[in-house]
Amino acid sequence: MHREQRQQTHDLLRQHGIQQALFARPESTKWLTGFAPPVQTGPNLYATSYPLVWYDGGQFTLIVFESPTDHGYVELAAPFANDADGHVVAYTGVRLDQPISSADELLAAFKSVAKVSGKVGVERAYVSDQIAHELYSGEVVAIDGWLEPLRMIKTAEELDTLRRNFALTDIGFAAARAATAVGKREIDVWNATHGAIQAAAGCRVPLGNDCVVGHRQANIGGWPLDYEIRANDSLIVDLSVILDGYWSDGCRTYYAGERTQKQEKMHRTALDALDLAISLARPGTVARDIDQSVRAFIADAGYPVYPHHTGHGVGVSGHEAPRIVPYNEEVIREGMVLMFEPGIYFPGETGVRIEDAVLVKSSGPEVLTHHDKL
Amino acid sequence: MHREQRQQTHDLLRQHGIQQALFARPESTKWLTGFAPPVQTGPNLYATSYPLVWYDGGQFTLIVFESPTDHGYVELAAPFANDADGHVVAYTGVRLDQPISSADELLAAFKSVAKVSGKVGVERAYVSDQIAHELYSGEVVAIDGWLEPLRMIKTAEELDTLRRNFALTDIGFAAARAATAVGKREIDVWNATHGAIQAAAGCRVPLGNDCVVGHRQANIGGWPLDYEIRANDSLIVDLSVILDGYWSDGCRTYYAGERTQKQEKMHRTALDALDLAISLARPGTVARDIDQSVRAFIADAGYPVYPHHTGHGVGVSGHEAPRIVPYNEEVIREGMVLMFEPGIYFPGETGVRIEDAVLVKSSGPEVLTHHDKL
Repeated sequence: MHREQRQQTHDLLRQHGIQQALFARPESTKWLTGFAPPVQTGPNLYATSYPLVWYDGGQFTLIVFESPTDHGYVELAAPFANDADGHVVAYTGVRLDQPISSADELLAAFKSVAKVSGKVGVERAYVSDQIAHELYSGEVVAIDGWLEPLRMIKTAEELDTLRRNFALTDIGFAAARAATAVGKREIDVWNATHGAIQAAAGCRVPLGNDCVVGHRQANIGGWPLDYEIRANDSLIVDLSVILDGYWSDGCRTYYAGERTQKQEKMHRTALDALDLAISLARPGTVARDIDQSVRAFIADAGYPVYPHHTGHGVGVSGHEAPRIVPYNEEVIREGMVLMFEPGIYFPGETGVRIEDAVLVKSSGPEVLTHHDKL
Repeated sequence: MHREQRQQTHDLLRQHGIQQALFARPESTKWLTGFAPPVQTGPNLYATSYPLVWYDGGQFTLIVFESPTDHGYVELAAPFANDADGHVVAYTGVRLDQPISSADELLAAFKSVAKVSGKVGVERAYVSDQIAHELYSGEVVAIDGWLEPLRMIKTAEELDTLRRNFALTDIGFAAARAATAVGKREIDVWNATHGAIQAAAGCRVPLGNDCVVGHRQANIGGWPLDYEIRANDSLIVDLSVILDGYWSDGCRTYYAGERTQKQEKMHRTALDALDLAISLARPGTVARDIDQSVRAFIADAGYPVYPHHTGHGVGVSGHEAPRIVPYNEEVIREGMVLMFEPGIYFPGETGVRIEDAVLVKSSGPEVLTHHDKL
């Protein structure tokens, strides 16, 4: 599982003369191992740290918390551990017969695995002081952000996960559309949406991002609250399902009853802007040129230009490189999965945003989000 | 907001001659400030760090991520910032016109606030290497775990939050009970439960912990999956709602149709064991004595003794001190909120667990969970 990711990382570190490295950023460790612990109730109380991955000359060791009664983490990591370059070391520190000592056991597990011998790469913004202290016998090199460019191009394994995830997301949109009605609240639509996704998945899956009525002042985005849908309201539903650690994304706008003329025109303009973006998602295009084209399209139609990005990649996080933003000179390449999300907003009145996912291919863009945009 | 917590912390640090301190453990910063960022989709991609709290001679500064487009974190922290000893410093690092630099901005924000002058307390297992590095001009003292004993006794403000939370949890149990039927799956019951809680709260709230049918081999606990409820199945539903950063807890066991004689006897025994635990929740009792009494009660009834704790505190995490476990000599005190959760399990066949929350008072235990236990 995720062997290509580790091969690329191995090559990169070797190019820089780095023999050993410690990864602790959640996106990095997920990408390197495919191991994605549950997140829905926040950081694991006893784990003390995010999962750690220790790299040593081509071998990768995942250091992961395991409760003696709630099993699951080591089991979740099994596909990685089955690979020749993948190893798992578990620590607990939560027992009935002694005080809790997870932090100490984590440190001991780390020391048992990491024998520092020279130049050590470290994700310094994520490794704790307690753990990092053990590395200072070597020459420490900050490698924060080094994996991000590698994460842009998806492997076949990642695309498979993303396709399953976008299919679930489509199910969520169908439920959201059906639940949108005058008198319902944002949270009611959200419950119907999240419930439908989890019923289809057969398990809990985290769900972001926005579910906001048009008359809400902050109608660009936000968590669902108890605002009621009124007659002629728009409802922006922006969904990210997190499946096996990978994020989908997408946005649709629904309406309570018939759209007003103004809404109809806004909706059509957003759709056209999205189609323009999709048509530009080809190898060789520069990210900022897509951004500029789509913003110009919205402005030319006489609307205020949205204050957010035009788009972004997606993968082990909800926002991956390349950012589709005004400054970004990165070139679009085959194998990227890009989100485009033009919107038009009149705060406190109404708003529209429509967002699709596109797989960049030499044969042309393949749209991964299939739920009706109209 | 949470001024008592900060006063206690100030007193504790001063007793140890510590003038400055950095807190980074999520439970600590929530407890000190009342600020509880959303957790449902995992760590904030751009925040880089959990929120930090810098203590300097009686003043507390929360350093918190704020997105320029998704507002909310600084707004959430406003009640804390309104106090005389509370300050908020925000960093962003995510803009349309330049590359993302949240980690750098966090570091800059921290440096602008923290002027190290002597003995500095640090939660070393949670502060990143990048941030901790800035403290090494002073004498660093590890203060990991120092706040845990203080967290045991709840303030009036905390009890108010917990009472609102336990009321929501009761609503979840009513929905779970109503949804339990042959042919339904664990995830279906979960969706009904979570939906009912969120509908009542008018917003998203994270929900733990377990929803497992009796015939599932790991029927003590686990996330809801697509196991179907069969005739005569038991269903253990263990719920923790996280409201404003505070965890509730509770467990009920439901049945598909009539209970078997075996289940009826198990259920009654678990109820009696729980009543015994509750009766012992008085100031002066020793934690391990409660544990021992309840385990002995289950064993005397002829059942295998549950492999988990008898109980635990609850607050800014799902498991707070005091642990109700065999080794713990901590004395129960007024103002503690304790969970008791005796269970009886026959893995792969059936199981029962019933859990209540109790506020320890000099006048006797007050049960905070009100949903029907029968």
